[in-house]
Amino acid sequence: MFEAYWDAHKGNCVQLTFANERLSYFVKSKANNNGLWFVFEGLDDAIRDLHRLVGNAVVEDRHILVGTGSTQLFQAAAFALSKHQKIDASTAVVAEAPYYSCYPRAIEYYESRILHWAGDAKKYVSSSKESYIEIVTSPNNPCGAPRQAAVVDNGLGSNAAGFLVHDLAYYWPTFTPISAAADHDIMLFTLSKCTGHGGSRIGWAIVKELAIAQKMAQFIELNTIGVSQDAQVRATGLIRAIMKGYNSNSQLIKSLGPLDAAPAADHLVQPAAVAAAKDSGHDEELLLLQDLIPERQFFHFGKAMMEARWKGVRAALAGNQSVTVQDPSAPAHCTFMGTTSTTYPAFIWLKSIKEPAEDCQRFLKSKLGILARAGEAFGVSNQYARVSLVGRESEVAVLLHRLAALK
Amino acid sequence: MFEAYWDAHKGNCVQLTFANERLSYFVKSKANNNGLWFVFEGLDDAIRDLHRLVGNAVVEDRHILVGTGSTQLFQAAAFALSKHQKIDASTAVVAEAPYYSCYPRAIEYYESRILHWAGDAKKYVSSSKESYIEIVTSPNNPCGAPRQAAVVDNGLGSNAAGFLVHDLAYYWPTFTPISAAADHDIMLFTLSKCTGHGGSRIGWAIVKELAIAQKMAQFIELNTIGVSQDAQVRATGLIRAIMKGYNSNSQLIKSLGPLDAAPAADHLVQPAAVAAAKDSGHDEELLLLQDLIPERQFFHFGKAMMEARWKGVRAALAGNQSVTVQDPSAPAHCTFMGTTSTTYPAFIWLKSIKEPAEDCQRFLKSKLGILARAGEAFGVSNQYARVSLVGRESEVAVLLHRLAALK
Repeated sequence: MFEAYWDAHKGNCVQLTFANERLSYFVKSKANNNGLWFVFEGLDDAIRDLHRLVGNAVVEDRHILVGTGSTQLFQAAAFALSKHQKIDASTAVVAEAPYYSCYPRAIEYYESRILHWAGDAKKYVSSSKESYIEIVTSPNNPCGAPRQAAVVDNGLGSNAAGFLVHDLAYYWPTFTPISAAADHDIMLFTLSKCTGHGGSRIGWAIVKELAIAQKMAQFIELNTIGVSQDAQVRATGLIRAIMKGYNSNSQLIKSLGPLDAAPAADHLVQPAAVAAAKDSGHDEELLLLQDLIPERQFFHFGKAMMEARWKGVRAALAGNQSVTVQDPSAPAHCTFMGTTSTTYPAFIWLKSIKEPAEDCQRFLKSKLGILARAGEAFGVSNQYARVSLVGRESEVAVLLHRLAALK
Repeated sequence: MFEAYWDAHKGNCVQLTFANERLSYFVKSKANNNGLWFVFEGLDDAIRDLHRLVGNAVVEDRHILVGTGSTQLFQAAAFALSKHQKIDASTAVVAEAPYYSCYPRAIEYYESRILHWAGDAKKYVSSSKESYIEIVTSPNNPCGAPRQAAVVDNGLGSNAAGFLVHDLAYYWPTFTPISAAADHDIMLFTLSKCTGHGGSRIGWAIVKELAIAQKMAQFIELNTIGVSQDAQVRATGLIRAIMKGYNSNSQLIKSLGPLDAAPAADHLVQPAAVAAAKDSGHDEELLLLQDLIPERQFFHFGKAMMEARWKGVRAALAGNQSVTVQDPSAPAHCTFMGTTSTTYPAFIWLKSIKEPAEDCQRFLKSKLGILARAGEAFGVSNQYARVSLVGRESEVAVLLHRLAALK
């Protein structure tokens, strides 16, 4: 979805690499002293500066650990925490349903004696016989809702033998108003949902306790002997490019006041046209006009695009009798944007409301040719299905067109 | 060790990256059709062309799977083969001792129910009750010896329930004469030991059976959702840079005759000087003169450097009464170089020969300030220790100087 932005601003991060650069596994870095030997110092700095600019996570007195995508960091955290606890039993890993479909797969694939997937956090009751890890995804994948820890306290005190891992992949102004700087023990972010460069495979964890960060680094050392330096250098440049758009650098950040309000996104989308085309059966007017996207700051661009897409989704689905879509959240103030808005989730979370109950993913595929992921993968019934809203503008246009055909 | 080469030839691979490149996880590739969706087609092509040029591995009708270093591919192979077999018991993973110290750690860290490290392949007896995976490292890490499968056949027929994985990281003209194109079920290579760019974290597997390659790809998908595209693009350029040095491209390779013999390496090294300095106590003459390294073809450069280093090692250790070093192999013809030579292992594999038996790693550290890895990590006694010979030229000069102090 960010391709149009980077096409327009491709010169904002031009990197030149010679053959004699980055031969070694090892990098000169202040993090070396802490055993986080593969973290490129420039990236560590850029990540901290970006969070200071956006205000979405506390980075002071925290350790930054880079991973080959946040997927590797999730596994690193699970193994590290499991080895960190003192109860001699397999550690349960849970998340409130619907949960990101990759979590159970990533835990179960190893068939580890020290970790097992235990499903929905709301149904899990902590005990003194095993420790648990709850992964809190906020905003949540698939539904976009804000989330907090959900494990039932069994009278052992809060988080008796439990650890929390916060997956904040979507906690950017693009997708949700930033209410405060998140401050949890382990927070995961990914370049993929920040700048859009999923192909680089760069994620990062912000970790409070050095001992945990070191155990996570050990997993990454055993798993892949560190993280590609080429990818880390690229990520550094891309993050700096976003910051340049806000005329920001690490020295200036703290003195920055609230930014200008986001420009109105109305010229990006034609919700009225969507509704009209739905009525009239005319297809062409459903197309979102990528050409109209103006030059603007990255998060403002992203938020405007998501706002436009969601207007399109709600218009396309208005009045249909087949599916419901997640409600918009109550409008909230965004400390970064300085404006008030609802969330704009990365995914459409649909529920089939036909009687008798229908498989939503199959329905979408057979009736509309829309590819979705079925609810069961997310720990709920197949009445639900997830549809991506972060593809290319042309794909979203086709998607909205097909959704609008729903009766 | 290849830094001097790339410093002199840094312009041979200059890559320019704009912000709008490689956003997606997915790449357009012919391998997509086979489920190897994250393999960059340009790298697949470059790897095949390089092996055709060097003649060290069969690539026709084989699948190329890229990994985040060959470490990830080793784990991918172990999990894939374990899930591929039909015996309902944990699969044993073995390697002939001394074996690469990372194998047991990489298998044991997961504490998996479906895989366990079972130590020395020479002591492992196959049975019908469990399947096994033998990793054959040739030339071997730590000792440089050529290796073949070593599991004892228990009357069940060769490899009754066994799978072989060949780690050919060091099977390049740099380290050993190339006798023939290796042709095994699963062969692992790594950019780190080929071009020297360990920091990129790129390895590759050449796999005969598509079903196995797909299961390995599934591990990498769950583990890291593919492999950094930035790193894959860089690896492609570096491999092409080496090939350009041989005026080679995919069209020309098959018509290439034997290459010119490697230039004599005598001007690179002063074995006589090493011996003389050892006698006289003069330090300065032990320095290998990096400035003298001439412009030359990559593998010829690497081989000449390793030959020079080994001359230095043997001269430094001549006549000492403390340690023995692995014998040179019998000279063999290299189909790539067109010359005959011994192997030049990446590591010095030392054995303390003092009475009573001494811990070689501790001895090297306390007496000479030499950092080594102790034998136990490689599945043998601590009378043995491994010292790297693939560091920077300046480091090797210090190493040789210290070794020469041995009595």
